[in-house]
Amino acid sequence: MPQDFPELKNDLLLRALKGEEVERPPVWMMRQAGRYLPQYMKIREKYSFFERVQTPELACEITQQPIDELEPDAAILFCDILTIPKALGIDVELVKGKGPVIDNPIRTTDHAFSILSEDIPEKLDYVMDAMRLTRKELNGRVPLIGFAGAPWTLFCYMVQGEGSKNFAKAKQFLFSEPDAAQHVLKELTRATISYLKAQIEAGAQVVQLFDSWAGILGPEDFNRYAWPYLQEIAEAIDEVPLILYPKGTWYALERIGFKSGAEALGIDWTITPEYAREATRNNIVLQGNLDPSRLLGPPEEIERLTKRMIDRFGVQNYVANLGHGILPDVPVDNARRFIDTVKEYEK
Amino acid sequence: MPQDFPELKNDLLLRALKGEEVERPPVWMMRQAGRYLPQYMKIREKYSFFERVQTPELACEITQQPIDELEPDAAILFCDILTIPKALGIDVELVKGKGPVIDNPIRTTDHAFSILSEDIPEKLDYVMDAMRLTRKELNGRVPLIGFAGAPWTLFCYMVQGEGSKNFAKAKQFLFSEPDAAQHVLKELTRATISYLKAQIEAGAQVVQLFDSWAGILGPEDFNRYAWPYLQEIAEAIDEVPLILYPKGTWYALERIGFKSGAEALGIDWTITPEYAREATRNNIVLQGNLDPSRLLGPPEEIERLTKRMIDRFGVQNYVANLGHGILPDVPVDNARRFIDTVKEYEK
Repeated sequence: MPQDFPELKNDLLLRALKGEEVERPPVWMMRQAGRYLPQYMKIREKYSFFERVQTPELACEITQQPIDELEPDAAILFCDILTIPKALGIDVELVKGKGPVIDNPIRTTDHAFSILSEDIPEKLDYVMDAMRLTRKELNGRVPLIGFAGAPWTLFCYMVQGEGSKNFAKAKQFLFSEPDAAQHVLKELTRATISYLKAQIEAGAQVVQLFDSWAGILGPEDFNRYAWPYLQEIAEAIDEVPLILYPKGTWYALERIGFKSGAEALGIDWTITPEYAREATRNNIVLQGNLDPSRLLGPPEEIERLTKRMIDRFGVQNYVANLGHGILPDVPVDNARRFIDTVKEYEK
Repeated sequence: MPQDFPELKNDLLLRALKGEEVERPPVWMMRQAGRYLPQYMKIREKYSFFERVQTPELACEITQQPIDELEPDAAILFCDILTIPKALGIDVELVKGKGPVIDNPIRTTDHAFSILSEDIPEKLDYVMDAMRLTRKELNGRVPLIGFAGAPWTLFCYMVQGEGSKNFAKAKQFLFSEPDAAQHVLKELTRATISYLKAQIEAGAQVVQLFDSWAGILGPEDFNRYAWPYLQEIAEAIDEVPLILYPKGTWYALERIGFKSGAEALGIDWTITPEYAREATRNNIVLQGNLDPSRLLGPPEEIERLTKRMIDRFGVQNYVANLGHGILPDVPVDNARRFIDTVKEYEK
């Protein structure tokens, strides 16, 4: 790892992820660099999504906005979850009101087998440039988190061609052409490993793997088509702590807690802290899990529920976060209340 | 209950729901009267959705299409999940590619408190007419299932105003104005009870309550805002067997199994048969749970997985079904393979 970055002043997240005893839980929010921030909306007026993602100065500025505004204990690089599909030749566009749309989704085995992971770090050099710049500009205030979409979740978009409630076309392809699907999943795994390693090389001090659509798979299909790749990636990344976030996989917590090789496991709000702790028996750091829509409600309730969440998870082996990304309509002061409640938490 | 309907020839579903010993599990499919059937698409070309729902002859014909084509063990009345909101003065329209859209969603406490359940059966007499006609026309071939959306799920649409991944506006209103929200939920509960009783009076031999969006609530919010109303409805309906389908509530199976007063519990495909049986300990009949997207895959796999599903649930105290509604793109022969595999099942 490069040694010429500014010294880290707030290492609370890193200590918590190592399982060290901490004075309070670290806190950050998934999607904290996003649409609920007026300063983000200003940049959004001037630059397209891909301009924001691919211009290191913009990504750096956006990444730091929530740090300046809310002072959480970590920054997460502003980036796209679909960078890897793009690097693999899948044309992703962003259509207003629709989200990502892909002109050439994978629908044939020939197309699937043509997917090859090559030169990912080089093709995504704009991400590494943004990472290096941001790590420098953060000046050690907080650690910088890198991230990637997990193979199954990327596969969903690459085959479906757009967002979906059930990704039926992706599952149809998976179930009908399992060999071709596994080829794609394996290439995505290779790509993700080299991508995350390059991010770490460029300055990421923690990485998170988002398997946002893991929960549309039943337990057996998760074990076959998502879990092996999560595990392979988690085992390959040993330079910095890795956080797995396989949304909706309540049935797999024990396995992930004991066999993934990851340092932390992000859980959503449908899982109680007690259930998650019982399943993982303190073998892994847990991250989460306030219902993101709670930040749309009354601030007193946000404070009460955030305290209660920490009471239930416990201060140790824990990273406070939402159970999913922060929603666009959240008032900034409500997000602040969440962050501040964690920072002021006393047992 | 009226006594002048034709005698029932296939009572397998009713026997299974009573917990009687059966020779094989009964089988039907959620949304079995729907877009995967070419004969349905023909009617759909000529009549709008609300014409189909509100014209008893059309609803009757559509309800019978899957019975004629696939011979499952039950019919479910073709109807809309949003009939009650409409009867309560919420204008629901169907927008192509978008689903239900509501012009006057509930966004103020005044609007919420103005919602009053009155004369539901009279306002929805077209449903009762369709039920009577269909019960007669079915001529006792299979039992006829009636249904309603559960209060929480109806609330989601009535406040959000359209379909959504997370129903953030509905949850925002719930969390910000819990008294007004509870008023709406209570009126919906009253409405649902009188609606289901009227359906039974008109010929429904089983009723199912769909809480399709229960799973976006965390366990505590489910216990507060969804569960009490499910329980109240289940306790009020004692004329015919009631099936609860609260999608995504894996954490509440034990409670539902032991305390709901329902005869059966529908589960989705993320819950293993073993987990569901262990949680409910044969105290309630289970229904489900093949991943609907499996019907898009190879027929041999459909057969293998359907057999395996029955092996795991066991033949007794069980109704074979999908884990959610059948998808529009399913080949009819694949749906047939699912139904036939259950019907030919031998231990």
